[in-house]
Amino acid sequence: MTLQPANIFKDVEKIRENAPLVHNITNYVVMNTTANALLAIGASPVMAHAVQEVEDLAGIAGALVLNIGTLNDGWIDAMFRAAKTAKSKQVPIVLDPVGAGATPYRTQTAKDLIQAFAPSIIRGNGSEIMALCGQSQSTKGVDSTSESNQAVDAAKTLVREIGCTVCVTGETDYIVSAQTLYEVKNGHALMPRVTGLGCTATAICGAFAAVNPEFDKAAAHAMAVMGIAGEIAAEISSGPGTLQVNFIDALYQLSETDIKKRLKA
Amino acid sequence: MTLQPANIFKDVEKIRENAPLVHNITNYVVMNTTANALLAIGASPVMAHAVQEVEDLAGIAGALVLNIGTLNDGWIDAMFRAAKTAKSKQVPIVLDPVGAGATPYRTQTAKDLIQAFAPSIIRGNGSEIMALCGQSQSTKGVDSTSESNQAVDAAKTLVREIGCTVCVTGETDYIVSAQTLYEVKNGHALMPRVTGLGCTATAICGAFAAVNPEFDKAAAHAMAVMGIAGEIAAEISSGPGTLQVNFIDALYQLSETDIKKRLKA
Amino acid sequence: MTLQPANIFKDVEKIRENAPLVHNITNYVVMNTTANALLAIGASPVMAHAVQEVEDLAGIAGALVLNIGTLNDGWIDAMFRAAKTAKSKQVPIVLDPVGAGATPYRTQTAKDLIQAFAPSIIRGNGSEIMALCGQSQSTKGVDSTSESNQAVDAAKTLVREIGCTVCVTGETDYIVSAQTLYEVKNGHALMPRVTGLGCTATAICGAFAAVNPEFDKAAAHAMAVMGIAGEIAAEISSGPGTLQVNFIDALYQLSETDIKKRLKA
Repeated sequence: MTLQPANIFKDVEKIRENAPLVHNITNYVVMNTTANALLAIGASPVMAHAVQEVEDLAGIAGALVLNIGTLNDGWIDAMFRAAKTAKSKQVPIVLDPVGAGATPYRTQTAKDLIQAFAPSIIRGNGSEIMALCGQSQSTKGVDSTSESNQAVDAAKTLVREIGCTVCVTGETDYIVSAQTLYEVKNGHALMPRVTGLGCTATAICGAFAAVNPEFDKAAAHAMAVMGIAGEIAAEISSGPGTLQVNFIDALYQLSETDIKKRLKA
Repeated sequence: MTLQPANIFKDVEKIRENAPLVHNITNYVVMNTTANALLAIGASPVMAHAVQEVEDLAGIAGALVLNIGTLNDGWIDAMFRAAKTAKSKQVPIVLDPVGAGATPYRTQTAKDLIQAFAPSIIRGNGSEIMALCGQSQSTKGVDSTSESNQAVDAAKTLVREIGCTVCVTGETDYIVSAQTLYEVKNGHALMPRVTGLGCTATAICGAFAAVNPEFDKAAAHAMAVMGIAGEIAAEISSGPGTLQVNFIDALYQLSETDIKKRLKA
Repeated sequence: MTLQPANIFKDVEKIRENAPLVHNITNYVVMNTTANALLAIGASPVMAHAVQEVEDLAGIAGALVLNIGTLNDGWIDAMFRAAKTAKSKQVPIVLDPVGAGATPYRTQTAKDLIQAFAPSIIRGNGSEIMALCGQSQSTKGVDSTSESNQAVDAAKTLVREIGCTVCVTGETDYIVSAQTLYEVKNGHALMPRVTGLGCTATAICGAFAAVNPEFDKAAAHAMAVMGIAGEIAAEISSGPGTLQVNFIDALYQLSETDIKKRLKA
């Protein structure tokens, strides 16, 4: 299915006007990066993980973003409390299963969160999404098309079981829901060389989910915006250092014309 | 009251010469940012929160900066221990009540720290300072002048009760003490779009308090330097990403001429 | 002893081809910075500290980097578990004793890790390396040559006791092993003004140790690459903010010609 630039930009404008509060319980490595990306697109980020306050914040947020990147048991407790409140207040939950498949601790935590709360959107790379379905990724170097197919199949399984939207990001981003499949081909090869741009994609999904209750479209719009901002940034960057900085500027400056000119979806 | 560029720059030179140790117990989101800002202005930052060592560090620091941005009970314990040592050694304490008013946990922690240690400087935005006085900010969209007035009144109440200097930052920064009221009108609209520049303002207060025992002037000088560096950076930035980077350069390069030319206070 | 540009670049190429997994248990301040530096040079960083998963990750890593910058007891526990696994699987361990000498807690933790696991490489500044030998640095302002001599002597003592490679970094970097002493004179005066570039040097040692089992050469090559990338970055930077960003680009772009042209070792 195809995306409409005007609809993508309508979401961007809503974010800029309403500055939705996005509550993140996320990993130490990317906190600064994802907070800056959320501010740049126009949202209001809050990073908080204390069990004494996560329920207060999740209950008033426009979206709750859970990211298991640098996990420990205290944080898992906070994630469950925040998610329970979010669920009861119909605040959309977005999950990033960072490193699922790499250790049993991460895989199990991601699965437990999914079973307990059925997040609105799950965003991960192919191997993470496959790990959530009990599959391990084929070894490095195999044909990337067949790998993408496997990951999309895993996403479809998750969608059937949970009833959520699943984003599988990579060279092409696949956004899978019960009714829809979007493919976003924007982005740039330098982007995976910046730590936390995957986590940023998930946080940006939170901003879009806060203004667009059709979560498949929210996720697809978020991926298009990520990819387009990455392309704009890459054109004036000489490596991942400048890319990280220019990417934030590009999110901030993003216009409807940019989206119309560049969208590949 | 008005500030003298020569006096502001005198403090900057003292920081550059003495490289005062600024001990920060601060939030995860901004640790890197505030450490870099402190290094750029010429101070020596140390970030440490373990109860096993905070007393050792606070006791030898030029200033102790407490920031409640990503709180938990262990960090509160560390803050109390560090502050107790700082107090006994007459090391100035600077408090940033990040998010006071947003959750009871933060509001209460900030109040407890203030009651127990009477910080030399408290820096926050209007709604945070009002929350410390038990007031909630008027809803969004009201006339910003009346809002500033309310926040300055709250600051005056705090000053009377605690005997400290209170900085209310916003489009105009108000620095309130028992004897003085400074208004600093430097800064740039892009600055709030960079995460952690408020926290950075607090950390920079720490650097100035370490070299200038007149804390009202130290805080006002710090706010002037923040705003001027932000203006210089904004002139060559195309968004919040480049602003963050150029701001650090501007702090590092800051000259007396820059201050003379730009100061609005 | 002298270093060969071709051999340095051979290690860089191996890192770029093999993308070795570097497991970091490191401090909050620099996590983002060191992850980005590792990605820029071509390695695959993972940051993880939960006791539930550090053994899983350390066991499959190409190197384990331990950095005691923002320590607490939970993290020390994780470091010991990860190091035990790394040792049993012959995964090289690289230690950064950040702030050893500043507090007994840090000095003791660094010493305990060294006694228990005999890291392959220890990288610190002069005062940290001296603290590991029970010496305190002479007061500020003394002749830097005599200070360097003292630190190199301390490094030699450590090498004798532990059988490791010790890197003492400063204006000149000294890489000391049982058989070899390398002196790397690359680098730029702006580099210590960026927080975490010391920690980054340690992380980059991890990337080189993962592809070069001669740890003295691995460490010396890493220091040469750090210094050269810093010089390249400094030429186009106007302060520590742009330096941090350009340094990452320089690591990413680094060519054999750059190394040939600039190496001072």
